[in-house]
Amino acid sequence: MTGLLALRDLIERKRDGGHIDPANWQAFARELAAGTLPDYQVSALLMAIFFRGLDADETVALTEAMLASGKTMQLSHLAQRRVDKHSVGGVGDKVSIVLAPLVAACGVAVPMLSGRGLGHTGGTLDKLEAIPGFQTRLSLAQAAAQVERIGCVIMGQTGEIAPADRTLYSMRDATATVESIPLIASSIMSKKLAEGLNGLVLDVKTGSGAFLQTLEDDLTLTRTMIALGARHDCPVVALLTNMDSPLGVACGNANEIVESVHSLKGGGPDDLRELALRFGAEMLILGGITNDPADARTRLERALSSGKALDKFREIVAAQGGDIAICDDPALVVAAAKVREDYLSPRDGIVQRVEPRAVGKGITAMGGGRTKMADLVDPSVGFQILRKPGDRVTRGQPLATILARDAATAAAGRAALDAAFVLGDGEVQRRPLVSHRVTAAGVEALL
Amino acid sequence: MTGLLALRDLIERKRDGGHIDPANWQAFARELAAGTLPDYQVSALLMAIFFRGLDADETVALTEAMLASGKTMQLSHLAQRRVDKHSVGGVGDKVSIVLAPLVAACGVAVPMLSGRGLGHTGGTLDKLEAIPGFQTRLSLAQAAAQVERIGCVIMGQTGEIAPADRTLYSMRDATATVESIPLIASSIMSKKLAEGLNGLVLDVKTGSGAFLQTLEDDLTLTRTMIALGARHDCPVVALLTNMDSPLGVACGNANEIVESVHSLKGGGPDDLRELALRFGAEMLILGGITNDPADARTRLERALSSGKALDKFREIVAAQGGDIAICDDPALVVAAAKVREDYLSPRDGIVQRVEPRAVGKGITAMGGGRTKMADLVDPSVGFQILRKPGDRVTRGQPLATILARDAATAAAGRAALDAAFVLGDGEVQRRPLVSHRVTAAGVEALL
Repeated sequence: MTGLLALRDLIERKRDGGHIDPANWQAFARELAAGTLPDYQVSALLMAIFFRGLDADETVALTEAMLASGKTMQLSHLAQRRVDKHSVGGVGDKVSIVLAPLVAACGVAVPMLSGRGLGHTGGTLDKLEAIPGFQTRLSLAQAAAQVERIGCVIMGQTGEIAPADRTLYSMRDATATVESIPLIASSIMSKKLAEGLNGLVLDVKTGSGAFLQTLEDDLTLTRTMIALGARHDCPVVALLTNMDSPLGVACGNANEIVESVHSLKGGGPDDLRELALRFGAEMLILGGITNDPADARTRLERALSSGKALDKFREIVAAQGGDIAICDDPALVVAAAKVREDYLSPRDGIVQRVEPRAVGKGITAMGGGRTKMADLVDPSVGFQILRKPGDRVTRGQPLATILARDAATAAAGRAALDAAFVLGDGEVQRRPLVSHRVTAAGVEALL
Repeated sequence: MTGLLALRDLIERKRDGGHIDPANWQAFARELAAGTLPDYQVSALLMAIFFRGLDADETVALTEAMLASGKTMQLSHLAQRRVDKHSVGGVGDKVSIVLAPLVAACGVAVPMLSGRGLGHTGGTLDKLEAIPGFQTRLSLAQAAAQVERIGCVIMGQTGEIAPADRTLYSMRDATATVESIPLIASSIMSKKLAEGLNGLVLDVKTGSGAFLQTLEDDLTLTRTMIALGARHDCPVVALLTNMDSPLGVACGNANEIVESVHSLKGGGPDDLRELALRFGAEMLILGGITNDPADARTRLERALSSGKALDKFREIVAAQGGDIAICDDPALVVAAAKVREDYLSPRDGIVQRVEPRAVGKGITAMGGGRTKMADLVDPSVGFQILRKPGDRVTRGQPLATILARDAATAAAGRAALDAAFVLGDGEVQRRPLVSHRVTAAGVEALL
């Protein structure tokens, strides 16, 4: 055990701005996965990392150590390339639910590892679990078999995948150590690399509802993940996308499933469709289907209009135990909110802002989100956000619909919308949906 | 519970450099004492405090909240004033063991709360427990009764005294959050103020073996403690004393008891005697015995030469269950090391340095100290440091004696002395034993 430090000494070294070598990160991740480290020391190290950061080598070492603490998906024998997508948290963000079947329908294998909502952001797993019977807890073997059979799985992290990350991740919210770029990057990549990917697309939300607040932080996170992927022959392509209002119309788990199905049928809101096509094109190129973005887009549009994307979604739902009737009439299958109320505009004017954080917190206040990981979520509650920044509205016109389980929670939802909707008289310059594209080659501004 | 934050939000606020109000510190200390807080959140808060500090108001609030989490010693009915002493860690520092009976013999009540050794520094309680039978775990009621009867007690913190501090303190070493001035000051003062003191003297060690490494830190700690004492009518007088070589000759628990008894008989090393007289004079003045430092010193010298100080020590040892034969022939009573070896000078020259940290670590390496609080200590081991910086020595002359339990640990002790003793040819300018005196009125340089 020469050269291995006691955890106390690791904490002190990081606290004082020192460098921790790979052997020590490996020992740390191994013991973390084995459950032998006192959690009060682990959290002290997390806070020291929050303040001191990790250098590039440390981030690589921690990521690989966490990856090595678990098992990986064995898919290298497949003819198709494997490409996944990750989103750095948004409100109303159901892109993954449309994207995974859409891209799989075009011939790329999509072994998708997703997360749950926390704070103001929702989570793909919570949304999918609004489908009666849908299972997201799959073993790696089950998941690999499903990918082999139908080209796609959407699942949660299990004890098999990067268990060291699982332990760290479970402590970070309660210890206020979430907002650390090296911890975010290593956590995401230790899980994603366990899927044996040939490529990864990354949706980095920007704007007032985004998790990170500056372009500099967005680019730092993106470049960190690109560097981590490169070491495993997994190119990472990131798009920086606008999150200064909720994506699409539907917010809330069941509600978003309904909208996702509309989108898979070729309908749904424009911004949702556009992001699915943009990320989908990147995934088809990473997946070796085509090198031409225009061709990729045509293939994706055809998969939507032909019903192939919806058929693939039906296969996924069936394979994971869900009620496939969702694909025919989703609104009849998912839980309906008991109370539906219009939220009316208090004045004539132009919608200046629809703050995603306020909308997200409103869903949580109505029981549809989490303030801590152990919270149960009510899939039925949420909002339909009918008006977006730049829309001209008149007094008494519905700006949104509140979906609540009773009058009291509807009032909480109303209060959240009072905070979210800012009306004024000036014209609004909307930010572009996709502002930057970042790859190993550099940053491309799309403004 | 209006205005009270969840612990997670306290962590986040401190992490981001915010201010935590008294009501939240009170709730924190109360729940800490009740054992209802998850320790991994507490340690994350400690690390955030390490990086962000506490402002003056927060330090006061935390100290008072920790004080209020426990009980206090009820001694206000006593005719004598109560004065205690605290030392910020040293090597060979047995001043408290001489000082407490000496000052009590002169008419000041000394309810002394002491600590245990950790890392390279020793602890008064460990030293006293080298006396067969000596008990340091007393209830507050027992302690108060002993002070009332004989004017002095030397005891450890119990669950009654500032239990919130006790919990924090127990976590700080393992989480590398010891070196935080507001945490040090609030920890010391929450315990000391529980004694219902009229005054406190503070020994702040300076130099290479000191816990704090800069004069600025020394003064910050001292001023923080002065401010905390002032709020409870407990004036604090600090002396900054030299710790660039071990104090006295004896290092190691049993060994230091023998030297303390010699000092109480009017003998012992000059530096030990001088510090006992200097701190003693401050305590007699704080204790209202005299206003004149020269008179105080005379009273103390008389107590040493007359045997009154030793008699008081005998009373303390008897009251706390120890073998009073220690007062007649200490070397026969305490545990003797099995192996005694001379450590010889490798060359002619002048002792440049005797690094206290190396000496302290050597004691720990021989089994006489702790690397964590649960470690058991062997009182018999240690060193006699026979030569000090500035002493001229010849090759083959003993620089020290190693007291060990076997040949292997003696070798560890020898290696530590190799690191501790630095020999050279240049004359050595010794730093003064006491360099600064700090009171509420300001800093007095004594150079």
